[in-house]
Amino acid sequence: MTITIFKDLLLKKDYKTIQNILNVMNAVDIALLLSELEDKELAIAFRLIPKDEASDVFSNMSSTMQAYLVEIFTEKELKELLDNLYMDDTVDMLGELPANLVTRILDTVDNSKRNDINLLLNYPDDSAGSIMTTEYVALKKDMTVRDAMRHIKDVGIHKETIYTCYVLERRKLIGIVTAKDLMTMDDDTKIGDIMETELISVHTHTDQEEAARLFSKYDFLALPVLDADGLMVGIITVDDAIDVVVDEATEDMTVMAAVTPSEKSYFDTSVFAHAKNRFVWLLVLMFSATITGTIITRYENAFAAVPLLVSFIPMLMDTGGNCGSQSSTLIIRGLALDEIKFKDIFRVIFKEFRIALLVGIGLAIANGIRIFIMYKDLKMAIVIALSLSLIVIIAKIIGCTLPLFAKKLHMDPAIMASPLITTVVDTCSIMIYFSIATRVFTLS
Amino acid sequence: MTITIFKDLLLKKDYKTIQNILNVMNAVDIALLLSELEDKELAIAFRLIPKDEASDVFSNMSSTMQAYLVEIFTEKELKELLDNLYMDDTVDMLGELPANLVTRILDTVDNSKRNDINLLLNYPDDSAGSIMTTEYVALKKDMTVRDAMRHIKDVGIHKETIYTCYVLERRKLIGIVTAKDLMTMDDDTKIGDIMETELISVHTHTDQEEAARLFSKYDFLALPVLDADGLMVGIITVDDAIDVVVDEATEDMTVMAAVTPSEKSYFDTSVFAHAKNRFVWLLVLMFSATITGTIITRYENAFAAVPLLVSFIPMLMDTGGNCGSQSSTLIIRGLALDEIKFKDIFRVIFKEFRIALLVGIGLAIANGIRIFIMYKDLKMAIVIALSLSLIVIIAKIIGCTLPLFAKKLHMDPAIMASPLITTVVDTCSIMIYFSIATRVFTLS
Repeated sequence: MTITIFKDLLLKKDYKTIQNILNVMNAVDIALLLSELEDKELAIAFRLIPKDEASDVFSNMSSTMQAYLVEIFTEKELKELLDNLYMDDTVDMLGELPANLVTRILDTVDNSKRNDINLLLNYPDDSAGSIMTTEYVALKKDMTVRDAMRHIKDVGIHKETIYTCYVLERRKLIGIVTAKDLMTMDDDTKIGDIMETELISVHTHTDQEEAARLFSKYDFLALPVLDADGLMVGIITVDDAIDVVVDEATEDMTVMAAVTPSEKSYFDTSVFAHAKNRFVWLLVLMFSATITGTIITRYENAFAAVPLLVSFIPMLMDTGGNCGSQSSTLIIRGLALDEIKFKDIFRVIFKEFRIALLVGIGLAIANGIRIFIMYKDLKMAIVIALSLSLIVIIAKIIGCTLPLFAKKLHMDPAIMASPLITTVVDTCSIMIYFSIATRVFTLS
Repeated sequence: MTITIFKDLLLKKDYKTIQNILNVMNAVDIALLLSELEDKELAIAFRLIPKDEASDVFSNMSSTMQAYLVEIFTEKELKELLDNLYMDDTVDMLGELPANLVTRILDTVDNSKRNDINLLLNYPDDSAGSIMTTEYVALKKDMTVRDAMRHIKDVGIHKETIYTCYVLERRKLIGIVTAKDLMTMDDDTKIGDIMETELISVHTHTDQEEAARLFSKYDFLALPVLDADGLMVGIITVDDAIDVVVDEATEDMTVMAAVTPSEKSYFDTSVFAHAKNRFVWLLVLMFSATITGTIITRYENAFAAVPLLVSFIPMLMDTGGNCGSQSSTLIIRGLALDEIKFKDIFRVIFKEFRIALLVGIGLAIANGIRIFIMYKDLKMAIVIALSLSLIVIIAKIIGCTLPLFAKKLHMDPAIMASPLITTVVDTCSIMIYFSIATRVFTLS
């Protein structure tokens, strides 16, 4: 479906054909298609979407489009939409809308839904509470499978998932039953007899990354969320968990490249916002790199006597930086996946030390030979080989320890990644290099 | 459950208590617990796991543990295990086992299963075929909901998911029905009337990353996989899609830090393997950094005349490298998430150019002022400010274009990330810096 054809049909008011087209399209794809329309066209096209799919399309739209639609909707249309929208999608939308539209929406929904919305809006960003939905199927332990199936038939259509059902006793979670159990067990079986009682749950304030990790560890489709009193308040579904996994990886990569992360995609972020997200880090790193420069000036006499010394600065700095970021990246990712913990610090350091020894000696030999052949200068070959080995070891130790300490101090380990470590390693590299050089060449 | 208590119980042969403990534990956690045991203890403990959970525990074990168990199992035990193991887990295991054990397993399973296994083993790594399972619920369009529910009750227990059912006609996929539909629709409804016919599927050779992206885009629980003739051969389930998302992000980060990616976790990779994964890239980057060094030697006279010039090398190199890796990281991630495509190249370059202009001028002003105040040297302030602006622009353009070209050439864009770009940018930075410096200071 190309957008030009679609716009032509709208212009010709051939609404029948448009309806037929929208009828066979997926909600996600309809949302993508509508994003290419002008506001007025959008208003018409949205009203042509089949009733049962409209809310699904709506939840896949950008917040700008949502705001526009909420603004032009009649009271009746808005109510219809909100009735069909899942709770977590409603809350997501509210987080992005201007205040007057939020008020309009809160005025439209009924009391109990308004309370739920207000509750969800108050959870901190990135918490399990902020991504959960309050719509789940609750069962009682003395129901039979037949009762449960009848209950799901009655209420299930409005729930985000019916595939994991929660057995509650005075709002306390006492077991879970999967739809698979219900569909394959005998009708007269009691829920209490088949429910799973080894429960894994999170709290509303648990970090969303932690919750997402449980999904990939245990292959869940949904995860119950409890409040501070241990009472069940909602569930997180697997589709939201995937979004968290993707977003957190993007955020880590962005931070590791010294960019302040943005919620929006590359093209949706303005030039000015991009510049702002990058500028501060560059400024900090630039000024810290001048420390390295200041150290170099201390050795002016050394490179005045042996000018060749200067030409190895880029190679030594780059190698140190690369070694450091190799280690820090592996540790940062290991921390994010919970494969490495702070208590492993000595194991990590010992491992990195042995790796550095192998790598450092290898690089030193390769480079020492190259320099001896190219410059026939044994002293220079020794200086470079020695410096390289030491730089590699220092770089790897710094690279692996800084993220671990960041984690311990409840900072984001990704902040410690390549650029910052490069700056620290640079300073060390230059100091190692020139102190070895001045000794071997007996300069001052 | 601490491991020491568990080992004590094993030593005391208190198998009843162990069984009671295992009874209330989750399969994933049992596998973790068993991973801390010696081989002999493992053999005993595994046999104490409740029958219906044993295969689930097995599929969560490391390949070393699986190999050990397959080796010691009796014919009967092995058959029982394989009967209960999902097809995709069986194939995962076979990919890691030594040849003699693979033969043992293929001898144990029946003919039709053996054919399925051989089929799955032949799909390329990282393809949709390699992560799919052949066990899914197939329905016919003239079945009623009641027929379908009965069919699921009969066969469902052995299928990896029953929540998405596939309507086939002569092995061709003509529709899908969700368990939610079946559970909420009237019993006499015909499957043909309620099935969804807008189908999204992948081919066996589709990249697994592409398949995983469809999960996060459309919030699927399962995705059908078709063969070259368009016939249905299997499904991918959402739990495997999450694993792909996590693994691909890890792989990208690793490659971006100039480390050859490893399938194993940090601690499971040996020191030697770590060193090997890092050495080659370091060697390549080290030798390419010497180019920058060689360029510097060409300007020996310049820094002999103005020694202060040398002290700005680290700052300029680092800033260039950081700017380049900021851009490359955002582009690489955008490509991975399919938010940026090669055809956007001019849009990207224009955007990065404007960002670079803002950032470059900002940094130039900040640094120019600093240098003028610190050294009272207007010429030096001008040289650095000019060089900085140009370096930032060049770095951002190189940083954004290299990953796009890599994508176009069907290479992994992540390879073009920070270290490689740093090396290229370094060379440009030094050339820009010294050509400006020699002109302003009228050196030769």
